[in-house]
Amino acid sequence: MESQFVDWLLARLPRDPRLEVPPGDDAAVLRPPAGRRTVVTVDLLTEGVDFLLGGDTTPARVGHKALAVNLSDLAAMGARPEAAVVAVALPREGAAALGKGIHAGLAPLAARFGMTIAGGDTNTWDGPLVISVTAIGSVPPGAAWRRDGARPGDLLVVTGPCGGSLLGRHLDVEPRCHEALAIAARFVVRAAIDISDGLSLDLARMMRASGTRGLVDLARVPIHPDAERRSRLADGVSPLEHALGDGEDFELLLALAEADARALVADPPAGIAPVIFGEVVAGTGLVARHADGSTHPLQPRGWLHDGA
Amino acid sequence: MESQFVDWLLARLPRDPRLEVPPGDDAAVLRPPAGRRTVVTVDLLTEGVDFLLGGDTTPARVGHKALAVNLSDLAAMGARPEAAVVAVALPREGAAALGKGIHAGLAPLAARFGMTIAGGDTNTWDGPLVISVTAIGSVPPGAAWRRDGARPGDLLVVTGPCGGSLLGRHLDVEPRCHEALAIAARFVVRAAIDISDGLSLDLARMMRASGTRGLVDLARVPIHPDAERRSRLADGVSPLEHALGDGEDFELLLALAEADARALVADPPAGIAPVIFGEVVAGTGLVARHADGSTHPLQPRGWLHDGA
Repeated sequence: MESQFVDWLLARLPRDPRLEVPPGDDAAVLRPPAGRRTVVTVDLLTEGVDFLLGGDTTPARVGHKALAVNLSDLAAMGARPEAAVVAVALPREGAAALGKGIHAGLAPLAARFGMTIAGGDTNTWDGPLVISVTAIGSVPPGAAWRRDGARPGDLLVVTGPCGGSLLGRHLDVEPRCHEALAIAARFVVRAAIDISDGLSLDLARMMRASGTRGLVDLARVPIHPDAERRSRLADGVSPLEHALGDGEDFELLLALAEADARALVADPPAGIAPVIFGEVVAGTGLVARHADGSTHPLQPRGWLHDGA
Repeated sequence: MESQFVDWLLARLPRDPRLEVPPGDDAAVLRPPAGRRTVVTVDLLTEGVDFLLGGDTTPARVGHKALAVNLSDLAAMGARPEAAVVAVALPREGAAALGKGIHAGLAPLAARFGMTIAGGDTNTWDGPLVISVTAIGSVPPGAAWRRDGARPGDLLVVTGPCGGSLLGRHLDVEPRCHEALAIAARFVVRAAIDISDGLSLDLARMMRASGTRGLVDLARVPIHPDAERRSRLADGVSPLEHALGDGEDFELLLALAEADARALVADPPAGIAPVIFGEVVAGTGLVARHADGSTHPLQPRGWLHDGA
């Protein structure tokens, strides 16, 4: 229903020559008057859906996450972070302490990525915590990584292992901004998306946008130790399924020409160990390929809480 | 407490050379790589605080308001609207219909002001409606209207009558963007702010930022018919008090040199009837001047729900 609503909405947003990448990608790219393009993205997090305050889930970790997921969107565009604005609705009780805690997690992350917090809007109300961050980045004209540029023959790369982020990692998102810029400096990235809702679901989005089919080598999907842990907790879901469907990994999923993909995994930027886990072929949807070469359709799975 | 938190927060935001106007003004101004400056502002509205859905308060009117208050912030910077991103948390029940209703109010306003909706984030949750709009505008270098530039001798101008917006007008905000640009083309505006929280409260903010005192001629404060209506409802508050303290008028409050102020009110842009209602003098705080010339300190009053 929501996805339908988003489609409905996207269909009604007028095209505008100032937008180099229109609504529906990881972020919109604005043609500024001159020089670099402006990249803008917004993510709104709500208590009860994106986090549950209490215990290990401190306001600082929530503040970190609220900015980090936006930085991840900028990374997925190959954009350099520039500025952010932060809007919050704080529960009246303890509002100031909560606000300070959020800032304590958000500000160091902003500083670490050379991002200035340019403003915000602080509200209190009788509801739970809501935090909305708008991030602005920049990118050279024509250089933004879109999700619709994958072509048959490209290889699929993911910048790290997936699955099990719910065990805590989803709060400590380490956005791949520096790595994205290092990759952009050396390679042509044909298509990119960050894994917010699930490796298979986000891959399906990239394939749909590109008009191509994703062929996933199941034996090569990098599985995070947290996915193994979740599986050992006897939840009836295999580590591979966790890796394909859990989401909130905030790794980058990239499509590159074969030579570029192989050069990237052979000599990656510091801090990541990217893996080739499949390829782009003609067709639609996703296909899983087993070690013996047999294939079957792969149903994309993941977290469908948000749109656009 | 909140105001303290905002002060605490502002004190901790690092200065950045990319910001021509730092946090704490109506909007932040970013120095883009070249050409015009980028102006960014965000406002988050929550059900129960900023509106109560039901009856005449349709989702479309809420969508209109959510964008309009941001456009008003751009107007208060003398900025030209360029783009907006919209993040919402929708109550699960009826989410799509509500989202569509919001869009129905928001999109025409965006179109009317030449603003492209560049993206967004749609979420559902078990809480009430939350809508956060980030607006981006542009302005020539050095031309943004700040709130800290008023000087003794300047006259205080308001672009329209105030008070009583709670009777319904607060939902149908008509942002003063075109009028602001028309004024910017003809005059040097020394300081500007939009009246979101109350004429006297927002004037006090301008005076505090400018290091000056505001002298308000009580007989010249333009009183909206809605303020008269609210007063007739026997609420014990005079129409003048409503005009000074109600807020959500979204008129512009400007400080201009005397000659400019007089030329503006003598020959205003189409659609507004600006009024000189006071002057800027040396000192701090606000002073009320009666028709007989006597003065007394004026306590700023208004809506203190949000910060920054």
